[in-house]
Amino acid sequence: MLEQDTAKKYSEFKVKELGIKLARLGRIVEHLEIPVLIVLEGWESSGRGEIIYNIVRELNPKFYDVKVFEPLSEKEKAYPEMTPYWNAIPEKSHIRLFDRSYYYELFNHKEASAAYDLLKQGIENYEKALYDDYTVVVKFFVNVTEKTQRENMEALIDDGYEQVYVEKLDREQNKHYEAYAKRFEHGLEATNYSFAPWHILDGADVKEASKEALGILIDQLQIGIERMLRRREGGMRLVRHYQGDRHPLAELDLTKTLSEDDYDAQLKDLQKDAADLQLKLFMAKVPTVLVFEGVDAAGKDGSIERLIKRMDPRMVKVHAISAPSAEENRYHYLWRFYKRLPEDGKMSVFSRSWYGRVMVERVEGFAEKNEWERAYKELPQFEKELYDHGALVLKYFVMIDKDTQLTRFEDREDDPDKQYKITEEDWRNRNKWDDYIEAMDEMLERTHRDYAPWILVEGNDKNYARIKVLKTFIQQAKAHLKAREGKDK
Amino acid sequence: MLEQDTAKKYSEFKVKELGIKLARLGRIVEHLEIPVLIVLEGWESSGRGEIIYNIVRELNPKFYDVKVFEPLSEKEKAYPEMTPYWNAIPEKSHIRLFDRSYYYELFNHKEASAAYDLLKQGIENYEKALYDDYTVVVKFFVNVTEKTQRENMEALIDDGYEQVYVEKLDREQNKHYEAYAKRFEHGLEATNYSFAPWHILDGADVKEASKEALGILIDQLQIGIERMLRRREGGMRLVRHYQGDRHPLAELDLTKTLSEDDYDAQLKDLQKDAADLQLKLFMAKVPTVLVFEGVDAAGKDGSIERLIKRMDPRMVKVHAISAPSAEENRYHYLWRFYKRLPEDGKMSVFSRSWYGRVMVERVEGFAEKNEWERAYKELPQFEKELYDHGALVLKYFVMIDKDTQLTRFEDREDDPDKQYKITEEDWRNRNKWDDYIEAMDEMLERTHRDYAPWILVEGNDKNYARIKVLKTFIQQAKAHLKAREGKDK
Repeated sequence: MLEQDTAKKYSEFKVKELGIKLARLGRIVEHLEIPVLIVLEGWESSGRGEIIYNIVRELNPKFYDVKVFEPLSEKEKAYPEMTPYWNAIPEKSHIRLFDRSYYYELFNHKEASAAYDLLKQGIENYEKALYDDYTVVVKFFVNVTEKTQRENMEALIDDGYEQVYVEKLDREQNKHYEAYAKRFEHGLEATNYSFAPWHILDGADVKEASKEALGILIDQLQIGIERMLRRREGGMRLVRHYQGDRHPLAELDLTKTLSEDDYDAQLKDLQKDAADLQLKLFMAKVPTVLVFEGVDAAGKDGSIERLIKRMDPRMVKVHAISAPSAEENRYHYLWRFYKRLPEDGKMSVFSRSWYGRVMVERVEGFAEKNEWERAYKELPQFEKELYDHGALVLKYFVMIDKDTQLTRFEDREDDPDKQYKITEEDWRNRNKWDDYIEAMDEMLERTHRDYAPWILVEGNDKNYARIKVLKTFIQQAKAHLKAREGKDK
Repeated sequence: MLEQDTAKKYSEFKVKELGIKLARLGRIVEHLEIPVLIVLEGWESSGRGEIIYNIVRELNPKFYDVKVFEPLSEKEKAYPEMTPYWNAIPEKSHIRLFDRSYYYELFNHKEASAAYDLLKQGIENYEKALYDDYTVVVKFFVNVTEKTQRENMEALIDDGYEQVYVEKLDREQNKHYEAYAKRFEHGLEATNYSFAPWHILDGADVKEASKEALGILIDQLQIGIERMLRRREGGMRLVRHYQGDRHPLAELDLTKTLSEDDYDAQLKDLQKDAADLQLKLFMAKVPTVLVFEGVDAAGKDGSIERLIKRMDPRMVKVHAISAPSAEENRYHYLWRFYKRLPEDGKMSVFSRSWYGRVMVERVEGFAEKNEWERAYKELPQFEKELYDHGALVLKYFVMIDKDTQLTRFEDREDDPDKQYKITEEDWRNRNKWDDYIEAMDEMLERTHRDYAPWILVEGNDKNYARIKVLKTFIQQAKAHLKAREGKDK
C-alpha cells in the first residue's frame, strides 16, 4: 500500500483555493449536522503538522478542532482500549481531526498477538459504527522515505525545535526504517475497510501532500453530504429483520415468592457477601458493569438499592438512564455510555441502559428500524469490548405481570414519598404493553451472551426478586474472579 | 475548632428516618434546580466511607453522585490548581459529594507559603462564586482522636482491607498526630467562611456522626430552598453599581491606517516571530490565554487568523464563544471557560469570552444587574488565577466606527463565502449600539489589570489592526518570558 502512486491531481491549484472549497463544504456539513472525522497518521517527522495546518486553515474555528492523542496515560488504560476515542468522536456539524489515533497504538502492538486482534476489532467496530451513523470518516497516512525522514529531523534540529518535535520514536523509526515500513504496511492493509479506506500521502513534498489531502476531503465531504440527503429523504439502507419465536418472558414463573422471614434471615449476610466481593473485584482491578432493565415498576431500583447497600459508595456508581439530553443527541447513541464506564476495579450500575435502543426507541419510533436492527450487532460488540478488557458484565431483567404493575402504579400515586416515580409516560407505556413485551422478548433472545448474560428475575414478589439478584451477583462475581485467577496462572 | 462540641441532637432518630427526610428535600432541590455541593474531609481512617454511605442511602441515584478526588495527576497539574474542582461543580438539581477535595491539597501544603495563600484564595473564590450562584455548599470535617484512628486502621487490617483502605498517609498521620492536628486546626480556621462554614463531625461514633451530618444537611437544604425561592420572587441582594466616567473607546483614533505595501512587507516576518514565540512559550510550559472582544464585524476573527497563521495547530485552539448551550446553562457561567483552558505550554484563543457576562448578557438582560455587577469581581479573580499559574493573559478589544460596521455588514451579505457570518442578531445588536458602547467602556475601564491587560485595537483599517495584534502579542510574549526567566533565577 505504501508504494501506491499518489497522483498529483491538484498541482495546479493553490492550497488556499482548495481550502476555500473545503470551507464551503464545511458549512454545508454544518447545516446538515454531519459529523466529520479526519484521522491523520504517518511516520514521525513526516510533516503532519504542516499538513494539518493546510487542511484547517480556511475552516471556521467554531466547527473544527484538532485532537492530539499522546501515548495513553495510566488513567486511560484503566478503561477499555477504545474508550478515549469513543469519548472523542465528533458531534454533529463538527469536523474533528485526530493527530495520531488508535492506529498509533495498533502499529505499536506486536502484529500477531491477542491484543493486536482485539484492538483491530475495536477499531473496525468504531469506524463502522460512525460510518453507519452518517459520520464522514477519512483516514490519511503520510509516507516518507528513510532519507526524507532523516532530512526532516535534521531540519527541525537546525531550527532549534528538537526539544518539541524530535522524539525518541523519530530516531527509532529512522534507525529501523525497514522494520517499521513492514509493520505499517501490514497494519494499513489490515484496516483498509471499504467504509473507511486509507489514503496515502507522499510526504516528499508537503505542499503537494496537503493539496492531495484537501482534494480527497472535498470528495469525501461531497459523498457524505449526498448520503445524508438521501437519508433525510428516507432512503436508509434496508436490513433484514430477524424475528425469533421464543418468548422467554412468557415462560417465567411469576408466582415465585419468598416469605418475609426467609428474606430477613438472608438479606444482611448476602449484602455483606456482595460488598466483600465488590472489594475483591476492586483489589483484582476488575471493572463491573451491571445492567438493570425491566417493565415499569418491576422493582429495578429497589433491587439495585439492596444489592449495593453495603458496598463502598465511592466504588459504585448508579446511572439512571433516561432519554438522551439535547447534547447527547448530537453524538452516536453509544457515546453517553462510553462516558459512564467504570474504571478498573469500580462498578457502574445502569438503571436502564443502551438497551433502550431496541426497546423504547424501537417501540416509540425514536430509532428507525434500520438503526435498532443494527444495534443487535453493535450492543453485543460493545459488551464484548468490556468483557475483553476484563469486566464482569451482567444484565438483569426484572419482570412483573400487568396486574402487579397496575397495583404498583396506584400505590406510587398514593404515597407522597413515591409519587415522583410515576409519570404520565408510565401510563402511556402501559398501553403499549404487548409491543414492549414483543421487543423485550426479542432483545432477551438475541443479546444473551456467555460474556454478558441476561439474568431473568421474577419480580411479582419483591423479596424473591431482591434475593435472587443478590445471589446471582455473588455467584457470578465468584465465578468471574475464579476464571480470572485461572488465566493469571 | 476541632475541640468544638458536636451535640448529639439526632440520637433519637434512626439513620433511615433522617435519610428519608433528606431525600424529600432532595426532591424539592431537584424541582427548584438548586445545585448542592457536600465537601467531606477529615482524617484518614476516620470512617468517611460509612458516613457517605449513610448520607446518600435514601437519595435518588439519578440526582446525586460521589466524586472521589485522588491526589492530582501530572495532567491535572498542567492547569490552574482549582480547574479540576471547577470542572466538577454540581449542575442544577444535582447533589454532588466530594470525597476529599481541594482541602486535601491545601492541608498538605506548607501553611506559610505563597502556594498555600494562592490555593486558599482560589478556594474562597470558588465557594463564594458557588454560593452566589445559589449552590448549597456544606462542608464536613470528620475528627478522630489518635486512638480511634489507630483502632480504625487496625480493624480495617483485621478485615483484610488493608490494601484498599490503609495507605501510607493513614500511618503517617497517626504517627505525627499532633502535627497534623495543628495543621488541620489552622486550615479549618482559615477557611471557615460565613457563606460556607465548617461542620465538625466526631468520628468516635460513626453512626452518630452520620445522623449529625444528615441533620445539618436537612437544615442547610432548607436554607438553600428558601434562598432560591426568594431569588425567584425577585429578591436578589442589591449591589451598588459603580459607574466610571472615562470613555476609552471614544478616545481611540480610528483613522489610523497601514498601506498595503507596508502590510505585505511586515506580515510574514511577524507571523514567523509570533509562531517562534509560541514555541518558546511551549518549551517554557507557559499556557497562553488570548481574549478577543469587539463590536460585531470589527475583524476579530481575521486578526486571530493572521496571528496564529504559522503556529502549530496542535498547540493552539480557537474557541468561538456564543450563547451557552442548554447543558452549559445548568452550571455556573464560568464552568464552560474552565473546561476550555489550555494546558501548560498550549494556547487558547477566545473569540468572544467570559466578558459576554458584562456585555451581551447585561445589555440584553440575560444576566440580572446583581449578577453582572458581581462579575466585575469574579472575572479579574478568574484571570488572576490563570496568571498566578504562570499564564500569559492578553485581552484584545477591536473597535470600528458605526459607518464601517454598516459597510462590512453589507459586504458580508453580498459575498456568498461570508454570508454565514452575518445574522439577524447582528442587525439587532447594531440598533443598540450606544448601550453596547456604554457597557464596553465600563468593562474596559474596570477590568484592565497588569496581569491581564486590555489592548485596544483601532480596527477601521484591517491592515493596521492585524499588524498591531501581531506586534503587541510578540512584545508581550517576550516580556512575559523574560519576567519568567528573572523569576526562575
